[in-house]
Amino acid sequence: MKKQRLIPPASSKVNLADYDPDYTGDYDKQTARDEVRQMQERLQVLQEMLYAQGKHALLIVLQAMDAGGKDSTIKKVFEGINPQGVFVTSFKVPTDEELGHDFLWRIHRSVPRKGHIGIFNRSHYEDVLVTRVNKLVSKQECVRRYQHINAFERLLTDTGTHILKFYLHISKDEQKERFQDRLDRPDKHWKFSIGDLEVRKDWDCYMEAYADALSECNTDYAPWHIVPANRKWYRDVVITRAIVETMEGMGLAYPEPEKDLDKVKIKD
Amino acid sequence: MKKQRLIPPASSKVNLADYDPDYTGDYDKQTARDEVRQMQERLQVLQEMLYAQGKHALLIVLQAMDAGGKDSTIKKVFEGINPQGVFVTSFKVPTDEELGHDFLWRIHRSVPRKGHIGIFNRSHYEDVLVTRVNKLVSKQECVRRYQHINAFERLLTDTGTHILKFYLHISKDEQKERFQDRLDRPDKHWKFSIGDLEVRKDWDCYMEAYADALSECNTDYAPWHIVPANRKWYRDVVITRAIVETMEGMGLAYPEPEKDLDKVKIKD
Repeated sequence: MKKQRLIPPASSKVNLADYDPDYTGDYDKQTARDEVRQMQERLQVLQEMLYAQGKHALLIVLQAMDAGGKDSTIKKVFEGINPQGVFVTSFKVPTDEELGHDFLWRIHRSVPRKGHIGIFNRSHYEDVLVTRVNKLVSKQECVRRYQHINAFERLLTDTGTHILKFYLHISKDEQKERFQDRLDRPDKHWKFSIGDLEVRKDWDCYMEAYADALSECNTDYAPWHIVPANRKWYRDVVITRAIVETMEGMGLAYPEPEKDLDKVKIKD
Repeated sequence: MKKQRLIPPASSKVNLADYDPDYTGDYDKQTARDEVRQMQERLQVLQEMLYAQGKHALLIVLQAMDAGGKDSTIKKVFEGINPQGVFVTSFKVPTDEELGHDFLWRIHRSVPRKGHIGIFNRSHYEDVLVTRVNKLVSKQECVRRYQHINAFERLLTDTGTHILKFYLHISKDEQKERFQDRLDRPDKHWKFSIGDLEVRKDWDCYMEAYADALSECNTDYAPWHIVPANRKWYRDVVITRAIVETMEGMGLAYPEPEKDLDKVKIKD
């Protein structure tokens, strides 16, 4: 298989047609699953050090079309992680209070503190995606928002937060199959809403909006990963690896003990 | 082994000397571990239904002396749980803003929303424990606080939140061993603070304050569980079982599908 980029080259225009959602590199399902399990053990150790050290935060942003696999990524990648220190925020339609502020206000309130991992299930990128497709904001306003987003992510990374952004790239056919599965399985009905089919009609507009966001907000300090996501096992191994590698690069360590800890005696 | 109560009888005075922290019932280590693993699979299904249904919330309160096992309970019991829908709040020394409000203000802000599980690592009970031992509040004020706590927990349970409170009961000798382990192991140094030894000196005062809180705030709607916690594997099986049984009793189910979902066809 011809090797496919995960992170688009900086300051180039992304064309999503160049990214095959079926791509699986050199992996087969079993190898991918085994590797995820191994890496999860390492992830547990890294998370404990991140928490103990309290110097860095990690922010993981997940974006995808409906049924793109955001929920199942969280479940599969963070299986076995200690829930103390991991916080998932699912951004829904903004409330009145949220709409009364700038679009980054509710996002900023939810960023992880040092020592923690924050996972955004949808994010500030909705404000240049769904709002744009539904013509709630102009193309011009979107351009301003890309700049606000880049400045905001710069603020976070300058102050100890590492950012990993994943776009889970599925094909329109794959979405259809997954919707059908939700219609067929009673235990999955709750994940389906008839409104999802309305959104599906705008598929091409969404792809265009995604391509722009992935191009304009792909910085060296907060790069986008375009994750081939038709095969869930490949998606999981790619994301788990990116997280582990990022954390390995943080220089994590257990903090220095208090002074004279070696002289402490517990008397009774 | 003589059977030991888990939940003290209502409106009776708890005497912690009656509760053996070494108690393990009919369990051995392997049986307990196996049972926890089995119940965790059930817990995953129950959590998904809780989340999908969005009718109930579950609040788990963990209290214990230092090294009593609060952190490790969270890690062990919630291994494999989907972090989306589980929120751990660790209450530390209150901030100025928190101190500017009544003692339940910061607690109320952190209770789980419907569909979620909230875990309190320490809680509002610190306000009748550490504050009392350190004489920041009078015995009389504590009595008022028990009433405030009972009314607050009544509010929560009346409005869809199920409350499980666990006191992890360890012996003073067990604490010594665990402290020594933290002193001996470099990867555990960060969990030890020299101040912990000061707190240890007040052990008897804490036991008295705990006995009062466990007696005065042991209601039928929000009962205390006194968990024998010297053996971690027994502690884990007791807590996991209480959580699973509580959730089994909630009448959880996947929500009804949208109307006419069976007629939906995905066209392209």
